[in-house]
Amino acid sequence: MLAYLDHNATTPLDEKVFEAMLPYFRQHFGNASSRHEYGRNARKAVEEAREQVANAVGAHPSQVIFTSGGTEANNFMLKGASAYLKPSQLVVGSVEHPSVMKPAQELACMGWSLRKIASDGHGLLDLSDAELALQTPTGLVSTMLVNNETGVIQNVSAIAELARKQGAWMHTDAVQALGKINVNFASLNVHAMTLSAHKIYGPKGAAALVVDKRLELKPLISGGGHEKGLRAGTENVSAIVGFGVACELAQKRLAGSSGILFAMREKLENGLAGLGAVIFGQATNRVQNTSYFAFPGIDGETLVMELDRTGYAVASGSACSSGSTEPSSVLMAMQVERDLARGALRVSLGKDTADAQIDGFVVALETVLARLRKLSAIAV
Amino acid sequence: MLAYLDHNATTPLDEKVFEAMLPYFRQHFGNASSRHEYGRNARKAVEEAREQVANAVGAHPSQVIFTSGGTEANNFMLKGASAYLKPSQLVVGSVEHPSVMKPAQELACMGWSLRKIASDGHGLLDLSDAELALQTPTGLVSTMLVNNETGVIQNVSAIAELARKQGAWMHTDAVQALGKINVNFASLNVHAMTLSAHKIYGPKGAAALVVDKRLELKPLISGGGHEKGLRAGTENVSAIVGFGVACELAQKRLAGSSGILFAMREKLENGLAGLGAVIFGQATNRVQNTSYFAFPGIDGETLVMELDRTGYAVASGSACSSGSTEPSSVLMAMQVERDLARGALRVSLGKDTADAQIDGFVVALETVLARLRKLSAIAV
Repeated sequence: MLAYLDHNATTPLDEKVFEAMLPYFRQHFGNASSRHEYGRNARKAVEEAREQVANAVGAHPSQVIFTSGGTEANNFMLKGASAYLKPSQLVVGSVEHPSVMKPAQELACMGWSLRKIASDGHGLLDLSDAELALQTPTGLVSTMLVNNETGVIQNVSAIAELARKQGAWMHTDAVQALGKINVNFASLNVHAMTLSAHKIYGPKGAAALVVDKRLELKPLISGGGHEKGLRAGTENVSAIVGFGVACELAQKRLAGSSGILFAMREKLENGLAGLGAVIFGQATNRVQNTSYFAFPGIDGETLVMELDRTGYAVASGSACSSGSTEPSSVLMAMQVERDLARGALRVSLGKDTADAQIDGFVVALETVLARLRKLSAIAV
Repeated sequence: MLAYLDHNATTPLDEKVFEAMLPYFRQHFGNASSRHEYGRNARKAVEEAREQVANAVGAHPSQVIFTSGGTEANNFMLKGASAYLKPSQLVVGSVEHPSVMKPAQELACMGWSLRKIASDGHGLLDLSDAELALQTPTGLVSTMLVNNETGVIQNVSAIAELARKQGAWMHTDAVQALGKINVNFASLNVHAMTLSAHKIYGPKGAAALVVDKRLELKPLISGGGHEKGLRAGTENVSAIVGFGVACELAQKRLAGSSGILFAMREKLENGLAGLGAVIFGQATNRVQNTSYFAFPGIDGETLVMELDRTGYAVASGSACSSGSTEPSSVLMAMQVERDLARGALRVSLGKDTADAQIDGFVVALETVLARLRKLSAIAV
């Protein structure tokens, strides 16, 4: 069995989450909009999950709008807000996920002026550049809380403060933050926040946009009056139930966090340094589970495939754009040299990662690197 | 246990479908965009499902774009096409599902001229009115194949022919048709078609837009390059796998169809007639599983609740807009009197519906009706 070290791409479904979902595949299969008992059971489960999700970020259940995924929630926020706001400046981080960056670029083709906040060399958004950006009238700001590649934790509340001074709506994609650090809607001072189930040992197919109810958003998906008219379509009840339970479990895990992940990553990065790795974002505040690095002269894709053969599942750049041969746009924003960026490898640990997997990984990497370096020496 | 007679709202998950999904909740939990073995297993499963879905409607796998639901697919089609076409006339049926009607109304606010094809008194779209409508230059036409409330089968290929003469793009929402009648992409002569899993004993959370690849559509949900750049977001692998298997099973069931559903509905409607029901769409071609009717002077919502208490799960109007107190817009388009329309009740049978449930339902209905009629007589 391949050791799974790619938890930022997706997480295995927690067996407890799956057990909670089971009845909603079987006896409680009803459509949550139906009035009969099957429907009412489904509705009740959806509303319980809404509370669990709200609780996880200190929001009110009525603020939670369920979507099919984080990408949909980000699209809904950017496109839904822009339909109500007069086109002005849209500010995003330069290290955003494609699900924010692409919609932002679309808005730029529709009369919005797109301004990206620069990142420093460690992947942290530059607050002085944010300040500069937000001297211009701005309708909408979106910056992620934790970067999916580097694991860097952004100072969202500080950016939110600048955004609010301009009267802009402030959104944060917190998909990679939930379950890894404390995420609180109020203390982040945002108007809207994206969360997703499948990054926290929940199922694929459920996510949410948590919104300040004073925001007016145009639905991206319209039709029946589901989710207070903000997101039409039959609710994916079992996935939503799983999302709720996953949120609850994530909170408990976080409360009892022992620093084991941190210790494992320390060990990993010591090993990596010994092998000559350049580690990205190491000098700044990162979530505990993520390590992002490269070896000069070694191609990341090749490393992923070689490690896969040796028994370790890791990522090169972000899985979400792995069809592409371009170096990671996050590393480009960090001013990392293109050749080095092409070597980027991401290891993201999870709640079931074992210490022995880290030891094994470093050994495997050493072997693979030795072979690849020998090959490239011959090629030269 | 409540007898489930509401299969047009959603269907119970077929145990065979669930078994096929199981491994993708557990060992094969990977992100289909990941390059390692977990990812490749997920990708393989998604592509197998794509073939199964394509086969079910005689399309090519490359024409299948997975979405989170039929509502999303309908929104994607209408909004995605309108982004490429110059605003002109948009033609839809007057009995469309809200997931087509709402986006159509949104386009009407964006420079499109919305024209609804009239329905006759039986719920069948009037071809001569379609002809009239399509004498005007038209960019886009969307008419459903089978109506969710009445079960009436529309003459989509004839409307498609008219649409093509105008150079319009032709879309059909075939969500309620799949698994109930033969659905063939080519012989319907459409450019695009919506299908959904949870109406054919598959899971909630998976659906598809099947498209003629010459169409240019703007993605509704953009981000990572999933689904050839047409629908971003981590694929809901287990749901997609379930969708594929559900399509395969639906085809087999249809091929071996014995007319049992038809006989059951005949028995049901004989019983209903004896109780004084007005049956909608009875004089026209309907799918076998659906019966839609009303009793003059009796409120549909009340009937649903009373029948629920007595052990039968049925629908009043469409579950998708059951938050509303308005009479069904489908019945309004059919020129049914408002008071009678408020009494509408839908019984939709499924593959596991038993003959005895029909007998029991008619008896229960008789009892409930007698009580309600007595009450209303006292009230008068």
